[in-house]
Parts: sequence; C-alpha cells; structure tokens
Amino acid sequence: MSRLHGKLVIAQGGGPTAVINQSLVGAVLESRKFPEITRVWGAAHGVRGIINETFINLSEATTHNLELVARTPSSALGSTRDKPDAEYCHRIFNVFKKHDVRYFFYIGGNDSSDTVRIVNQHAYGEGYELRAIHIPKTVDNDLPINDHCPGYPSAARFVVCAISGVNADMNALPGVYIAVIMGRHAGWLTAATALARKHDDDGPHLIYVPERPFAIDRYLVDIERVYRQHGRCVVALSEGVWATRNEQGRAVPLVVDLMARAGREPQVDAHGNLQLSGGALADELAEIVQKRLGIQRVRADTFGYLQRSFPGVVSNVDAREAREVGEKAAQYACWHHVDGSVVIKRTGDYAVKYELAQLADIAAKTRCLPDDYINADGNGVTDAFHGYLRPLLGDDMPNSERLWAPMVR
Amino acid sequence: MSRLHGKLVIAQGGGPTAVINQSLVGAVLESRKFPEITRVWGAAHGVRGIINETFINLSEATTHNLELVARTPSSALGSTRDKPDAEYCHRIFNVFKKHDVRYFFYIGGNDSSDTVRIVNQHAYGEGYELRAIHIPKTVDNDLPINDHCPGYPSAARFVVCAISGVNADMNALPGVYIAVIMGRHAGWLTAATALARKHDDDGPHLIYVPERPFAIDRYLVDIERVYRQHGRCVVALSEGVWATRNEQGRAVPLVVDLMARAGREPQVDAHGNLQLSGGALADELAEIVQKRLGIQRVRADTFGYLQRSFPGVVSNVDAREAREVGEKAAQYACWHHVDGSVVIKRTGDYAVKYELAQLADIAAKTRCLPDDYINADGNGVTDAFHGYLRPLLGDDMPNSERLWAPMVR
Repeated sequence: MSRLHGKLVIAQGGGPTAVINQSLVGAVLESRKFPEITRVWGAAHGVRGIINETFINLSEATTHNLELVARTPSSALGSTRDKPDAEYCHRIFNVFKKHDVRYFFYIGGNDSSDTVRIVNQHAYGEGYELRAIHIPKTVDNDLPINDHCPGYPSAARFVVCAISGVNADMNALPGVYIAVIMGRHAGWLTAATALARKHDDDGPHLIYVPERPFAIDRYLVDIERVYRQHGRCVVALSEGVWATRNEQGRAVPLVVDLMARAGREPQVDAHGNLQLSGGALADELAEIVQKRLGIQRVRADTFGYLQRSFPGVVSNVDAREAREVGEKAAQYACWHHVDGSVVIKRTGDYAVKYELAQLADIAAKTRCLPDDYINADGNGVTDAFHGYLRPLLGDDMPNSERLWAPMVR
Repeated sequence: MSRLHGKLVIAQGGGPTAVINQSLVGAVLESRKFPEITRVWGAAHGVRGIINETFINLSEATTHNLELVARTPSSALGSTRDKPDAEYCHRIFNVFKKHDVRYFFYIGGNDSSDTVRIVNQHAYGEGYELRAIHIPKTVDNDLPINDHCPGYPSAARFVVCAISGVNADMNALPGVYIAVIMGRHAGWLTAATALARKHDDDGPHLIYVPERPFAIDRYLVDIERVYRQHGRCVVALSEGVWATRNEQGRAVPLVVDLMARAGREPQVDAHGNLQLSGGALADELAEIVQKRLGIQRVRADTFGYLQRSFPGVVSNVDAREAREVGEKAAQYACWHHVDGSVVIKRTGDYAVKYELAQLADIAAKTRCLPDDYINADGNGVTDAFHGYLRPLLGDDMPNSERLWAPMVR
C-alpha cells in the first residue's frame, strides 16, 4: 500500500484526565516522524474546533514544550461536550476534504470513538481515503475490550490516596465518613478506594457501586455494624447509585429518594433540570446516618473535580500507557494503514500489549464492573479486583504507617 | 540547674495535618537521647488519653517505625476535640503527679497551647516541677507570633495543586468553578490558592476570605466581569465568610443568607444545630450564579477533608520544620529548662529560626491575614502574600504548561 500524503488533525474530547496530554504528545511526536503526514494540526476544543476551523499548528510546537504539556493534566487542546450526530460528522468530513486532512486521531471516550466511526464512514462512502483512529481515555474506565483506560489509573491513585488520608483522619478522630465518588454508570473509580485498606480494620469499610441496587435501610444496617465493631466507618459510594424504588416502584436517583424521605424538594437548575451534581447527595447520606443511627460525628465529602485531574498525583504506569496509545495511533495509521480504536490488553502480571479494535465495538457499550469484582453482599470488592488494580496504581504509593509500641499497663 | 528526672507525656490534639507526625517523631527521637527522660509515653487521643491513663510506651517504638509514621498524615497517637477547662486540667496534672511525669509536650493549635498553660499553672501552684511545651500545628495558620504554622504549607500545597488542576479543567471546558476551602476565621488557606496562577488569565480569578465582609451582589458583579473577559471564572472562597447582613442588620453565615434568598430552610442536624459543614454553601453559591447570571456551566466543590491530610502532597519545607519544632521542644525542656510554645520566625528568603514564646501569648488570639496581604477590592491577594507563601510550598511543585504553537490561519 502506498503512503497516504496529507494533514493530520488531532483532537481531545470529553472530561479531562491527568494523562490525556501524554496521549496527545505521544501521537504528535510520533506523527511528526512520518514524512507523509505533511502537517500536524490540533483542533481547539475537540470536534467543535474542526467545524469552526480553529486549528493549532502542532508541527511548530517545540519538543520541550510538548514534553512539559504531557505532564500537565486536562486537555491542552481544549475539549468539548458536543456529541456529533450524522450531520455534524458530515461537516467534520467536509472540513477534512477542504484542507486535505488524511489522518484523524480523536482522544476520548465512547462518544468520541463513535464520532471517529461516523466520520470514517463518510470518507468510505465518498471514496476519500482517511485514516481514522480513536485513542482511549476516561477516568470512568468503562470502554469495552480494554483491560483498562488511560486516565483511570491516575484517578484511582487519587481516590486511594484520599481515602488513605481519611482513614488516618478517622483513626485520630473517630466517626462516620462518606465519600461520594465519580461514576454515573460504572463503579470502577469507587471500587478503587478499596486499595486504601492496608490493615484489616482500615476503611473503606463499605463500597457501593451503581452495578448493584442501593437500599438505604441496608446502608444503615451496614454502617451500624461497622461502627459498632471499629468505632468508625469509612464509606465510598458512586454518585451514580440509584435507590431501588420510590412509591411508584421505579428506580430513582439516590439523592432524590433521600430528599423525599427528608421531606425536601430536589433542587432544579436554572433550566428546570434535576440537579444531581454538587454536594446534596453527600449531605443527605450523612444526615440520614446522624438522624437514624444517632451517631454524632458524621462527615461527607463529594470528591468532585479534584479526582480527575490533580497535578502530581499520577500513576507512572498510566502516564506511560497513555503515551504509548498515542504513539500507537500514528504507527497503526502510517505503518499498517488501518482504522480503529487503540486498546490496552493485559498480557502478564504486569505487562500489556496494544491492539486495534473495531470502532463500532468501542462505542457500543459501557463496561461495568464484572460480577467477580463485587462481593456477595454488594458492599465491597473482591480479591480479584485488588489483583486487577494494584499494578495500575504505579510506583511510590504513599505508605500509611501506624505506631507499633506496647500500651502502658 | 540540675537535671529533672521523670517521664515525658506527649499528645496530639485537634484536626490532623499532613506533617503532625513529623513533630511527634522529632520530639520522641530527640527526647529518647536525654537520660533524664526516663520514659516517653504517648497519650492516646490527646488530653483524653491522659485522663483515661491510656498511654503508649514510645520508648519501645522502633526508629524505623517512627520514621515511617513521620511520613504518614494525621495524628498517629489519635486526637481529641476536648477543650479542657480548669477542672479537666487539674485532672491531667493529677495523672502526671501519680506517674511522675515531669515533661509534657502537646502538639496542637490555640486550644492545645492553652491546655499546656493551665496544666503548667497547676504545677507551679503546687510546687511540682514540670516542663510543659506546646508544639504548634494547624492547617489554619492562625497561631500568633509564628511566621507560619506547621501543617499549613502542606495544606496550601494541596489547594494550590487542586486549583491548578481546576484551571486546566476550566481551560478545556470553560465555565464558572467555585471552590469552598477550609478556614472559619482566617483566610490563609483560601488565599494560598492564588499561587496556582501561572499565567495572567489563570484562576483563581477571585478570592474571598473571612477577613472581609462578603456581599453577594458584589460576588455576582465580580464573576460576571471575569467571565466576560476570560470566558471562564475560578473562585476560591473560605467556608467562614459571613454575609454582610440579613433583614435585621446582623451578619449571618453565608450559607444561611443564600438559602434564605432561595426561599429554603437552613438544614439543622440531629441536635437542632445549624449545619454549616457539608456541600450546601458550594451548591448555593453555584446556583445563584446560574440563576442570576444565566451562565450554564457552573460547578462547585467543597474541598472538605482531603485538603488537610492528603498522603504524598507534602511540602518538604513543612515536613522539615514540623520535625524541627518537635526536636526543639525536647531541647528547650532538657537543655534550657524552660516552658513555652515553640514558634517559627522567618529570618531570610528563605530561612527560619525557632524560638520559645510565652504560652499565654499563643492561646490569646487568632492571627488573621494582615491587611497588606489582601487586595483593595477584597477579592484577591497582593504580591506581598505571594512572596510570603511561595517558599513554603516546597520543592518540585507540579508545573502547568500550555501548548505554545501558532494558530493555523
């Protein structure tokens, strides 16, 4: 197959991660080695930058600048929440034709892979040769086929460190602590907190994920049991858990259920939409423990934006893999002349290889926690999950040490 | 002066910091060098452990264990919120007499220094020789006389990193972001976020501290101006800001004022106390921006517990100084036979020395941000504050780098 000459457009979509710029820089530096790629253009703010033709000439970025950008969290090109439909994708394709763009790399999650797929279909339909590669990223870790997604290990490292600190805090000043953690559909990040448990009595003592129905009465029974046993209780809960049912028998977002129980109206935003983000879920979860169990010191935090792009809390395994999936995109496109989504597969303990999957297979579904990673009671994780996550957290995890000295008799 | 033979009791009080165990370990290792200190006992959970006579024999802790504990956040001995009155202090003193305790070191904030003072008075009153030293710690940085307090630089480093990550996030997906940061009476920690500003248009664009009255209308005007100029706005606000006045002309906690404006009842806990912690303040601050300014993407986080004891996010300057104030306690007691509170004074850029202050002078008042650290508009900090804080953050602060490449014409 002859070399395909033309420009590369690279873009970043969706929420940030701590290592998404490693993928950008891996792809840019590797692409600049191939003479058939005549220019490397970065689209500002994802697909929107393509439509608006706001491109940054990354062929002229210095290697030094790129290397420093690689270590900076959150999309350096800017991002977008636009989810292109067929017509939007057609406009993208038209911009590509206009500027002789022959390579398109999009770093993002499920939606981004679907955008790449549809744009690629337009190219096929019109007989326009285009190499289109999706580069995975998401702190949610919910892309199928991948063993794990770049961005997740660093976010996991953050929540493990956070809960480890909370454990030390609750050992010093005992009480109940509830952490509300990102994850609307999949509990990967919440489950990760389990790795903060060094000693048997460390938290998180209870972990609730969206893969299992959540029952408030069960939650209270669980907390009371742990609190009686240890004098403290650390809970990790996904923002996406749903209450099993309301009066009408339907599942409702947990915060709505809790506010209804407390006789409060759920908050709506300026557009009348139900407000699910913010601290209300954590506050309600704390209040019901205080009121129903009579425990005085109950605290709750919503980890919010900090967990997805905290500078300096980065897994070196994640940084390396994010870099490599970016590099592989350029290699698949230029050496192998194929389209698809770069995926990470685990081949050892710990080793990975990269493959190219069909774009349609990535966008298709959300990968939730498999059953064998969740314990039988639905309030914790299994050893299998520990084995899965531990190598991803990277080197030099902070160690939590207790005093080992005898009590004075 | 002859050597004073007897036991040392050391305890930790109040909220945790990332480096409070450096002080503990510094004091323990240094004390174990002095033969006149016959045993080093740690009181479990602060002064409460003294009353309950639950002591840990730290003379038998291994140096290796202690060195690892030093790097673990939050009080390894456990802490307490007890604020001893005169009678409580008398009970402490009686326990000391019973066990021939001749040295008392208490690591904590204002309240802890006052406890040390009162216990010491009892000793003087009864002619019982006791060396009593307060070792400072507080993320709030509000102890007088000290240039800064151990624990504050690491907490400052955390909030600087957090806001730096949020900046990158808001550059990628523009909107308004509000961070609610610890500080009920003093704005030191909130002010620290200013150091996250690398480029002129970086956040935090607005900083509100309890040292200045807070007016919601001014807040909205400020945000609208920044948002129009930069297309995004990052706000840092102390949890302790008070609304200038309610209908009756009195200052009220901001969350109460905001809820009243929104026609909502402030939340009370199981004991009928007004609920000031939790995410309500952040949620209300975000909602009023959405509703009044019509900005769609408004997010708010309450940094909560993470900011005070996050493992691995530690200023090496802070770790060193926390260690040294612990060591100095033992030296003041054993070499100099004096009582007091160890204080940090700045002697250069950057250098410090340690002195011993009168206990009564430490407990007396809260040190707020001085006027010359707050800008004229009361919504930001001055260059003088930047100069004050920068050396405290320690080495190897994560760098935030932007892409430097030309736009395609």
